[in-house]
Amino acid sequence: MRIAVIGVGLIGGSVALAAKERLGATLTGFDSSPAALSAALRIGALDSGADSIAAAVADAEAAFVAVPVGALPDVVGAALEAAADDCVVTDVGSTKRAVVAACADQRFVGGHPLAGAETAGVEHARGDLFDGATWYLTPTANTSGMLYERLHRMLHGLGAHPAAIDAETHDTILATVSHLPHVLANVLVSEAANMLAAEGERLPATGPSFRDATRVAGASSTIWTDIYLSNRDPLAAEIDAVIERLSVVQAALRAGDAETIAAWNDAAAADRRRLLEAQLAGGPVFELRASVPNRPGVIAELALELGRAGVNITDMALYPAADLSEGVVALWIAGAEPARRAQALVAKLGFPVARA
Amino acid sequence: MRIAVIGVGLIGGSVALAAKERLGATLTGFDSSPAALSAALRIGALDSGADSIAAAVADAEAAFVAVPVGALPDVVGAALEAAADDCVVTDVGSTKRAVVAACADQRFVGGHPLAGAETAGVEHARGDLFDGATWYLTPTANTSGMLYERLHRMLHGLGAHPAAIDAETHDTILATVSHLPHVLANVLVSEAANMLAAEGERLPATGPSFRDATRVAGASSTIWTDIYLSNRDPLAAEIDAVIERLSVVQAALRAGDAETIAAWNDAAAADRRRLLEAQLAGGPVFELRASVPNRPGVIAELALELGRAGVNITDMALYPAADLSEGVVALWIAGAEPARRAQALVAKLGFPVARA
Repeated sequence: MRIAVIGVGLIGGSVALAAKERLGATLTGFDSSPAALSAALRIGALDSGADSIAAAVADAEAAFVAVPVGALPDVVGAALEAAADDCVVTDVGSTKRAVVAACADQRFVGGHPLAGAETAGVEHARGDLFDGATWYLTPTANTSGMLYERLHRMLHGLGAHPAAIDAETHDTILATVSHLPHVLANVLVSEAANMLAAEGERLPATGPSFRDATRVAGASSTIWTDIYLSNRDPLAAEIDAVIERLSVVQAALRAGDAETIAAWNDAAAADRRRLLEAQLAGGPVFELRASVPNRPGVIAELALELGRAGVNITDMALYPAADLSEGVVALWIAGAEPARRAQALVAKLGFPVARA
Repeated sequence: MRIAVIGVGLIGGSVALAAKERLGATLTGFDSSPAALSAALRIGALDSGADSIAAAVADAEAAFVAVPVGALPDVVGAALEAAADDCVVTDVGSTKRAVVAACADQRFVGGHPLAGAETAGVEHARGDLFDGATWYLTPTANTSGMLYERLHRMLHGLGAHPAAIDAETHDTILATVSHLPHVLANVLVSEAANMLAAEGERLPATGPSFRDATRVAGASSTIWTDIYLSNRDPLAAEIDAVIERLSVVQAALRAGDAETIAAWNDAAAADRRRLLEAQLAGGPVFELRASVPNRPGVIAELALELGRAGVNITDMALYPAADLSEGVVALWIAGAEPARRAQALVAKLGFPVARA
């Protein structure tokens, strides 16, 4: 398999390493920084460097665009222009609405791996970066089912758990579970640095809770300015919600209201448990087989419907009929109850479906 | 050495295990919960269980009080009442003003180890919990130098780095670096749970930034309600500061002001670097020897003065003269520059001091 990576930083480099190591793929890369490209070649993430986006994606069966969010519409557009008809083009950006709206091509599937590290740059790239990580995919009604399935299997091969979601929902959720934590981490380090400076430049040790809460503070501005701005409306709304919640706690503190503080803290404990349990859901894997017409959007519809219902597709495979008029899609679902729900949902979409 | 532990939860149990394993001490414990006491005996943290605070501290050379912050003044008071004249009594509470004000006894030194775990209860106690952890001590002008030194050496023996600080400064700093992160973690999990419920009970995977930011969310209400309330004024003030900072970012987001967002993020990165560098300060250890009069408060004065200047005392030892009228205190300081500063500060306090 030939894979192109456009933008070889931490994520692009890790995609390349994982694809080489685990899929046995041949990797071609491009980066607007010659130094980054050389570094990617030096660490063995790429088999060859290209001198343009077009040269990188020529002959590729899949192209991963891993550039800052603000540059995505242009760079994905350039990749689509040069890519073959059966090349799936995806990106790894942290917000999805803008790029999905700009790139309405059946070969494009927006993507976003929930993985990263404290350190940017290809020299920190790792082939195991995506092990067990959720990798959001944002197919649309335009998306080719064949290409979506290829990408899904590829990501599964990289060690990730692909999960379909629509771009709008993705950005709303990520505002809360990723962009907001980054904002709070920034606020917390700056507040601590400021307070400690006020205490006479004395910077004492901080505890584990502070280190955990601020691990992502001050992440690369090159990457994060774009992310914050591309998702500014949901993020600004989340900041309002946080200010509201902080004001409630603050009022209880000022009133010395132990009962309210304890109830508030217990509610947070319960919320955390719910979130953790949702993460840990799983169990034995069941296989479903559904017959679907071979037209763009079908696989996306199916994946989105299951995604909306909280059903995680562990793996999928598409078996087209000889005349390509229809196909069978196999879905592997973890847990008996989710598998049952998935079967009902697929049936409701009008596709014949059975437990394999 | 005979050590008493009053309150055998995660921290009390870990003190006991570490003291047995590393100091070869004999441990007696008391807990108002018989189940906790049995569990502490079962895991081998205690040599014997006592049926009262008084029985536990009788004959002890050191007593650690590890009960919720709200109960500290009473329990420390009871321990001091029963303890021998040369028994050092300390606590491990997360706020220090209230207990230090309530217990003005020369045998009492307030303490607070910056260590913990996601899990409460003695069954999670570990002898290595304090390895490398800062352990704040809040001596006052009343504090016995002999007993302070004993405690300092003991904590060093448990693997911790003791650091002197006055109770007021401790609580102000901890409001920012510990209690505020806990509040933000609570707010974040509840906001995420709420938002995800609004998205149709679909609870997708969250990324590493969310998990890190919310690790401490919903910590035990039994412990934390007391902590929040005992430090409510500094904490409420910190919440004001956070709301102010959030409002600034929010305005820049709404204005689409990339320059301000990038500058704000860069400032957070610089603040984080400063904080990390302060943590990592260190180097080779230098020994200073100072001659000090043998009266209460001298060691505390010295430790607080160095603490205020950001000098960390890696270890200390006190060698009293035969007539106990004066003594030599040895201080080990990491780093040539801090050692130089420490020497100047000790000299300025009027004590003869030399590099050993």
